[in-house]
Amino acid sequence: MERIFATYYIETPFAPEKAAMVLAGEQSSGTFVAVPGETEELKARFAARVEKVTFLETVNTPAIPGAESPTGQYHRALVEVSWSIENFGYNLPVMISTLQGNLYEIRQFTGLKLLSLEVPDSFANHFEGPAFGIEGCRKLTQVYDRPLIGTIIKPSVGLSPEDTAATVKVLAEAGIDFVKDDELMGSTANSPFEKRVDAIMDVINRHADKTGKKVMYAFNISGDIDDMLRRYEKIVTSGGTCAMVSINSVGISGTKKICDQRALAIHAHRNGWGMMTRHPLLGIEFTAYQKLWRLAGVDQLHVNGIQNKFWESDDSVVTSIEQCLKPMLGGYKVLPVVSSGQWGGQAPETYRRTQTLDLLYMAGGGIMAHPMGASAGVTALQQAWKAAVDGLSVEDAAKIYPEFAKSVEKFGKS
Amino acid sequence: MERIFATYYIETPFAPEKAAMVLAGEQSSGTFVAVPGETEELKARFAARVEKVTFLETVNTPAIPGAESPTGQYHRALVEVSWSIENFGYNLPVMISTLQGNLYEIRQFTGLKLLSLEVPDSFANHFEGPAFGIEGCRKLTQVYDRPLIGTIIKPSVGLSPEDTAATVKVLAEAGIDFVKDDELMGSTANSPFEKRVDAIMDVINRHADKTGKKVMYAFNISGDIDDMLRRYEKIVTSGGTCAMVSINSVGISGTKKICDQRALAIHAHRNGWGMMTRHPLLGIEFTAYQKLWRLAGVDQLHVNGIQNKFWESDDSVVTSIEQCLKPMLGGYKVLPVVSSGQWGGQAPETYRRTQTLDLLYMAGGGIMAHPMGASAGVTALQQAWKAAVDGLSVEDAAKIYPEFAKSVEKFGKS
Repeated sequence: MERIFATYYIETPFAPEKAAMVLAGEQSSGTFVAVPGETEELKARFAARVEKVTFLETVNTPAIPGAESPTGQYHRALVEVSWSIENFGYNLPVMISTLQGNLYEIRQFTGLKLLSLEVPDSFANHFEGPAFGIEGCRKLTQVYDRPLIGTIIKPSVGLSPEDTAATVKVLAEAGIDFVKDDELMGSTANSPFEKRVDAIMDVINRHADKTGKKVMYAFNISGDIDDMLRRYEKIVTSGGTCAMVSINSVGISGTKKICDQRALAIHAHRNGWGMMTRHPLLGIEFTAYQKLWRLAGVDQLHVNGIQNKFWESDDSVVTSIEQCLKPMLGGYKVLPVVSSGQWGGQAPETYRRTQTLDLLYMAGGGIMAHPMGASAGVTALQQAWKAAVDGLSVEDAAKIYPEFAKSVEKFGKS
Repeated sequence: MERIFATYYIETPFAPEKAAMVLAGEQSSGTFVAVPGETEELKARFAARVEKVTFLETVNTPAIPGAESPTGQYHRALVEVSWSIENFGYNLPVMISTLQGNLYEIRQFTGLKLLSLEVPDSFANHFEGPAFGIEGCRKLTQVYDRPLIGTIIKPSVGLSPEDTAATVKVLAEAGIDFVKDDELMGSTANSPFEKRVDAIMDVINRHADKTGKKVMYAFNISGDIDDMLRRYEKIVTSGGTCAMVSINSVGISGTKKICDQRALAIHAHRNGWGMMTRHPLLGIEFTAYQKLWRLAGVDQLHVNGIQNKFWESDDSVVTSIEQCLKPMLGGYKVLPVVSSGQWGGQAPETYRRTQTLDLLYMAGGGIMAHPMGASAGVTALQQAWKAAVDGLSVEDAAKIYPEFAKSVEKFGKS
């Protein structure tokens, strides 16, 4: 029988091997005394198995509150555990409850983080994965030889549908590939969802008729299931190509229901993610996280950006991009969405470290606040990526490209 | 215009007032430069407002990774922020993205936890809340003068539908009020969901026909939306009264869709919760968390238990019970589910500290592994609660009640 493998980074005041057994017990039988019916045969078939324990180091201070150490020492280790897929079948929520669930509550751990996750090949028969993925998003936007360049409508909340559409018009004419609602924007008093779609798609469809290029707009449909489905349909019938879902706020069942419609590319916004990963010894690493959402079927997934305005290190961002681009079950390609404080100046470093153009590169203020206007903002981004591929530094690129030079003047650190 | 208020516990290397402004900015305009269209009028209407900053203390070590302090000092404070409900309307996922979202990513914080949340009265017109709540669950189980006594089927995974039904028969005859699937159990190779429902409801319906008492069984329907709805219907048509959802694994949109059906009591299992709350300066407190799920409409919500086997303190458990029982919007009553290592010995202390019988009191091993059998296990639990109300100590209760005395012998700490 096929098995699922998960690796955890743990810290415990007890022997790591013993703590690993507690982990496996909690996630396959889970009570504090032996109970009738727990036969050897049943255990052999359904019990979680500790595959490997790798000791790392011993520290004197626990990472998070838990059982006190009698010796004052806390041991860190990598623990690999496996489950038969018989335990949960092809059910993402039950798999998540098994891989994570009560584990974070166990007092025998003073730290526990799910690092990685391997699912067996038969998953490919039960999860279709992204309907569009990288190739599909390129086809929809007609962008092949560079990253998709995108931006976020700002201010995030408060603009009328007409104001927003006017901004989209400027951006479309400036040559933008992708625009998105902010995650704070759903359907508001002064920008009801349907009216916003009408106003924006009118601009986008006219521009497409004229130029052959359809800007991809990610309308934020996050909400109740029925509202999401209705709004999804509204986008489809209006000629749109993309919907955005705040995946952590909506949850995986709701997100998968949307992905299962398979008529729009799904832009997965990971806001809320910091809570799950920011502590080094609590929660889940992006390496495991991104697989869950690729199984659910999202087409685009946020990864933060190099030199971002948030807490995350460049190394972590680079790893996230690499993880998204690593094939899974022979496919399930998801487009990494690079964003947060991006203005083009990070393009050379992003390319140097990832060697990929398969990105959706988002600049908010970097485009809209460009000194020569939004059109120059988009041009500057394209220049930045051309420079990146040509191996130019930011300084060298600024000498060649006047629009990019203005970006450097305004947004570059002196 | 009505506003939503949220209070955060923050830590920052900067002046708390300044960090609070960053928080409010990120969650209502959110870019690193001023952009056109961000008028004073728009800001007045839609900007998040810092209501209050209360300085708490200064420490020398950051709680979680973030911006380094130039002075080596990190300041802790309570920050109250408010938003006009115009910003998101009555949309739980967008509200969650606003209240939490990118906040956990902001480098200006070396700690951020959402402590509490106040929603305005108009929410009562848009969120129906629990369909059954405390009163409804009492009516369905015919239990009025004591906590509902429940148990979990163990081993959690691996029993056949017939084995499980046989256990339920023993429990029903023992006088149990409530039984649930384990959160690790969905639909497995050797216990397909429909067959399990058939086998168990046959036992429960027969028992109800004979005695007039229908045991409430929480079948774990967690899964894809369509599967959940189909399984929900299966429970309804089979005469069941309850469905269980792993709320963190399924997510709030999927859970609300299930609650909106309003034909079954919804047992909300919070597995995964530890990740969101275990660090004192990261994530969300139960006080805020439980309100979100009451708005979604769950009827029963896990709160851990006194002297539990997990990491959580008794104080924290008591606060959680109190929070669940506090009316919200004039109702939205949710039944606190007390579980984890419970065997009856914790009943006196639980009652002493909470003074309530409005609980679903769950014992797993405490019932099934009772030395005199499951029937005596249920009796022991009922005795424990009678003793608790009578103000008896565990020792005094053991002198009066023989079944409870056996529990003390087996499960009590010597």
